[in-house]
Amino acid sequence: MKSITGFARWFVPALVPSLLSILFVFAAVAGAAEGTAPPKDFRSWAHSKSTVVADKGNPLHGVHNQYANKSALRTLRKGGEYKDGAIFVDSVNTVVETNGIYAPGPKAKTLVMIKDRKAKATGGWVFEAYDPAGKPLKFDPVKDCFECHLSGAKESGFVFHKYAE
Amino acid sequence: MKSITGFARWFVPALVPSLLSILFVFAAVAGAAEGTAPPKDFRSWAHSKSTVVADKGNPLHGVHNQYANKSALRTLRKGGEYKDGAIFVDSVNTVVETNGIYAPGPKAKTLVMIKDRKAKATGGWVFEAYDPAGKPLKFDPVKDCFECHLSGAKESGFVFHKYAE
Repeated sequence: MKSITGFARWFVPALVPSLLSILFVFAAVAGAAEGTAPPKDFRSWAHSKSTVVADKGNPLHGVHNQYANKSALRTLRKGGEYKDGAIFVDSVNTVVETNGIYAPGPKAKTLVMIKDRKAKATGGWVFEAYDPAGKPLKFDPVKDCFECHLSGAKESGFVFHKYAE
Repeated sequence: MKSITGFARWFVPALVPSLLSILFVFAAVAGAAEGTAPPKDFRSWAHSKSTVVADKGNPLHGVHNQYANKSALRTLRKGGEYKDGAIFVDSVNTVVETNGIYAPGPKAKTLVMIKDRKAKATGGWVFEAYDPAGKPLKFDPVKDCFECHLSGAKESGFVFHKYAE
């Protein structure tokens, strides 16, 4: 899968193209000043959905617990265009499997997307990623995030999150 | 597992002992008047944890998304005794598996436990269960719920929920 391949580059910094530095400058100019830590209160936001990627060979391996702030949740449920300031968080834990029961292990990383129309190179979303300590991870927002959101979630405003009742 | 066996009886009403009617009367006397519908707003409560029971032979088969109201969350995180009115919800969906990715399918049932010290036969918790339409399901709160909570979660106030960061 193209999307998986793109994501895998998070884990292979050597592959990140030199374009990265230019993009970081762009992101800074575009007002992506949020990228210093995950949103402090996201665990109290509405839970949109949880998915387990059990296959250890899949770079998305993990328990994915997804949260939406009020603005993001409103659009997620009712449709329409996301407003600037809408935020989705994908909190990823390792997977602990026991007799066919998949539960979250230790925290692996926190993925964040923040709606900001000025981030034109990435569909109007600022992508962020943090390690378990909340320290920013280095990645290429176009290759490692947006290309997959573009190919797989164009019809939903580049958002993969769903609201599961 | 004893706990699984107990739970299985939900699906085999013929096995529910005649004790059930007595217990329902007890529950009513004990003030368990809540048992008419799931809490309306639980999807906006704090999400405590999600677990996937993938094995179709397991009566607990499903994607379990668990939520805690404010009172329940406070004790879950900080410890101590649960206060009357603390509520946990386990929202269960069917499991849809695609290439080792486990996602929630249609809603299966909603399980609720409400702290009420007067419910002495079930450890001070009122157990409730609802079908996807929100209609109460018939079950034996002692055999089908409390016996497992007693054997497996005595040290945590009969609560299996965990708060996963």
